Amino acid sequence: MLPAPPGLPEFLPGWVWLVGAGPGDPALLTVGALHALQQADLVIYDALVSAAVLALARGGAILEYAGKRGGKPGPKQPDISRRLIQAARREMRVLRLKGGDPFVFGRGAEEALALAGANIPFRVVPGVTAGIGGLAYAGIPLTARDTNSSVTFLTGHGVGGAVPDGIDWAAVVRASPMLVIYMALKHLPEIVARLTGAGLAGATPVAVVASATLPAMEVRVATLATVVAAAAAAGLEPPAILAVGEPVRLRAGLDWLGAIAGRALETDPLGARGARDTGS
Amino acid sequence: MLPAPPGLPEFLPGWVWLVGAGPGDPALLTVGALHALQQADLVIYDALVSAAVLALARGGAILEYAGKRGGKPGPKQPDISRRLIQAARREMRVLRLKGGDPFVFGRGAEEALALAGANIPFRVVPGVTAGIGGLAYAGIPLTARDTNSSVTFLTGHGVGGAVPDGIDWAAVVRASPMLVIYMALKHLPEIVARLTGAGLAGATPVAVVASATLPAMEVRVATLATVVAAAAAAGLEPPAILAVGEPVRLRAGLDWLGAIAGRALETDPLGARGARDTGS
Repeated sequence: MLPAPPGLPEFLPGWVWLVGAGPGDPALLTVGALHALQQADLVIYDALVSAAVLALARGGAILEYAGKRGGKPGPKQPDISRRLIQAARREMRVLRLKGGDPFVFGRGAEEALALAGANIPFRVVPGVTAGIGGLAYAGIPLTARDTNSSVTFLTGHGVGGAVPDGIDWAAVVRASPMLVIYMALKHLPEIVARLTGAGLAGATPVAVVASATLPAMEVRVATLATVVAAAAAAGLEPPAILAVGEPVRLRAGLDWLGAIAGRALETDPLGARGARDTGS
Repeated sequence: MLPAPPGLPEFLPGWVWLVGAGPGDPALLTVGALHALQQADLVIYDALVSAAVLALARGGAILEYAGKRGGKPGPKQPDISRRLIQAARREMRVLRLKGGDPFVFGRGAEEALALAGANIPFRVVPGVTAGIGGLAYAGIPLTARDTNSSVTFLTGHGVGGAVPDGIDWAAVVRASPMLVIYMALKHLPEIVARLTGAGLAGATPVAVVASATLPAMEVRVATLATVVAAAAAAGLEPPAILAVGEPVRLRAGLDWLGAIAGRALETDPLGARGARDTGS
């Protein structure tokens, strides 16, 4: 058992809480999310919520799936919003549980606006987003001194399921030395082509992190030029995060899960860059 | 009390855990971080860790401050790393507690590399970063359908304390319709000047969120042209996050904390944009 911090809000009947479930490891659930799971009457969860997280719902809660599975289309967004509103009007405590954080590529804003429009009271419980927590489990920091002061998050799936339109890739590769691309695996060749076409060097360090933070997590480090072949050879499956940029190199010194499993960490993971830069 | 998920790792003597404390509200602490606080012998925390979070450390834990306060310089980074190593060698359970997430503008990578170099075993426990969780408490989503497929995080303080060098601001404003700038208040006029100089319109919606998620949280919505005056008039104090871009407008419909306090939410917060765009 863990002590509950004082002042956690009571989950009242007729309310909807939009809750981030984090990337998958239940250790990355927030205290507020765990508290919500312990009180909810109805948990409406999407495809990226792990079984280990769902197992923390209180015994009497109804678990209702609202994602896509096996390539089949799931409920449409307006249907999900209607379901949330209907259940709240029946005086249920409705927990809308989304992978990662509800306001990061999660369409949580749409659902919350629908609730506001229907006069349903709601709260938002932020979560650890996979682009941060998932990469940390792979030993990849988003920022590091001497490497970068900015990082850009993008989604590999736009509203229609394709690589999003309207992204200025030439600006993206110059804006941040570190890019984190969500849902990157399905369109990986196209994403790599756009980054390469925008001028990013083929030698840029890249990592693919599949099933981040779960026991099935797989990490492949490659370069922009080799990552498509590396991901295919490894048979990686979605969901996966793509990390692109110099901080990926730090994994050689920061792969703490690997170290726990017995692999040695390098003490100077950026040394190779220094050596290359001086031509030695 | 809250149930602990099965399989949480035991905090062993001689280990250092680098833990994100989240933005301040203890409800945003992860279960893994709470579990760590309950086991640690020594908690070395920085300036952005809230008192409410520190209060969750086990009774016998030593709390040691390692940040800056009142403009005075705090311990230097190598001193902090040395302290972590020294305490771990004395077989303490050492919890290095950092505001937000340790790998997002937190210098956690440096500390972890120092630990690896000294052969000290370590874990990383990611946290909710203020740029996501803090903005969610202000009712500002990072992404929303119809507004953006990318978001860029920047820090307003570089290694030397000034606005970071080497940022291509013209690329930044074209790469993402949403920018989140950490530690933005001290250099706010300069940041605004750079964004304006890079071509961002003066009418761009902007929010300053100070003391995000804490009871003292203050939010001011303005435009790029008016935010310096608005922040000064409100007497906002650090730490503060700056959000720049169209999703800021959604706060009018998503300010759930405001709604709980009795303020009405707009049901069509982007409607104003549509009206303006058509000149009506």
